[in-house]
Amino acid sequence: MTDRRSVAVVLFDGFELLDVFGPVELLAAAPELFELRFLGPTRDLVRSSQGIAVTVTDAYSDAAPADIVLVPGGIGTRRLAEDPGFLDWLRTFGLSASLVTSVCTGSGLLAAAGLLDGRRATSNKLAFDWSASRSDRVDWQRQARWVEDGDRWTSSGVAAGMDMTAALIRHLHGDEVADRITTHVELEVQRDPARDPFALVHRSATAAPTAD
Amino acid sequence: MTDRRSVAVVLFDGFELLDVFGPVELLAAAPELFELRFLGPTRDLVRSSQGIAVTVTDAYSDAAPADIVLVPGGIGTRRLAEDPGFLDWLRTFGLSASLVTSVCTGSGLLAAAGLLDGRRATSNKLAFDWSASRSDRVDWQRQARWVEDGDRWTSSGVAAGMDMTAALIRHLHGDEVADRITTHVELEVQRDPARDPFALVHRSATAAPTAD
Repeated sequence: MTDRRSVAVVLFDGFELLDVFGPVELLAAAPELFELRFLGPTRDLVRSSQGIAVTVTDAYSDAAPADIVLVPGGIGTRRLAEDPGFLDWLRTFGLSASLVTSVCTGSGLLAAAGLLDGRRATSNKLAFDWSASRSDRVDWQRQARWVEDGDRWTSSGVAAGMDMTAALIRHLHGDEVADRITTHVELEVQRDPARDPFALVHRSATAAPTAD
Repeated sequence: MTDRRSVAVVLFDGFELLDVFGPVELLAAAPELFELRFLGPTRDLVRSSQGIAVTVTDAYSDAAPADIVLVPGGIGTRRLAEDPGFLDWLRTFGLSASLVTSVCTGSGLLAAAGLLDGRRATSNKLAFDWSASRSDRVDWQRQARWVEDGDRWTSSGVAAGMDMTAALIRHLHGDEVADRITTHVELEVQRDPARDPFALVHRSATAAPTAD
């Protein structure tokens, strides 16, 4: 059981459902390898961008250090990127982890917390400019399904989080485990992080206020 | 606004997270077209197969008829397939809808409720035999990403629900709407319902008790 890692999923009001539950579906398929924790501002329910609310296991302030941190996107990131208290906590919590990951505009929060300084990173393509504007100390990659830079993994928008998570499982536990999990959930994963059909679609798009 | 449809997502303890939140992510991206309701046995929280619990909007017994019904899979289906009270309610609720859909072993529940009599349908590939054994009045399709048979749409396991939902949105609202939504969530959908790489993988697998 020494291979088992704790994964802290950082929830907040206005998190994007699939940013969270795509990766969680994959990680939870191997409970012998990953122990999932769901963190919120308090122990109260946290409301998704789509309205449905979910339970948390720990308040931010009570959460034990985790091996892996996962920060999703969602409209709630806009508010948190201006919240010094949250960013201070996220920075400290992230620095204590072995791996810090994000989906979608979650990388905007990592950037604002200083957790991507000097790293390559990507984000949601529709809201790319918003994420990129959170920090000029990040080497932002406009065309990437996901970006791995050492102990920082960031994915593109929403569904890209599943490809990144499958790649992360493959990186940590090898082909057999990754293939077993993706077959179990009947997910055809994209394995090339550089392949990003959505980068071109959104190339001329400016950050839309309602993008996630 | 006459095009707006109500979608009732039937939740139960032991529902599979991605079966629900993949399709919901897509449908919720067009709130002008789909009004989502989340139904549970009561108004209390409903616990997923993965542990995290979610809020519901209506108890089964209080739910207004919906245009579209979505039944997910998950380990909780095993118990419900033997619950005459639930199956009676599901049958009545489904018969009042314009479209009845399922993801994964949700089709086992539809079959047990008699909602797939005389129809072609598919299910999760790992637990296919379990679903198929719920009714011999269904023309079960062992190889299919999803199956559309009139007002009954059933998908294969977990992630296949997103492909089916994208196809359903395309069917109801056309290419422009479907492409806008899938681009928004950066999902590369599979558009061929007959393409099913997971059918072969699981061809010799028997229904595993822990499969969803």
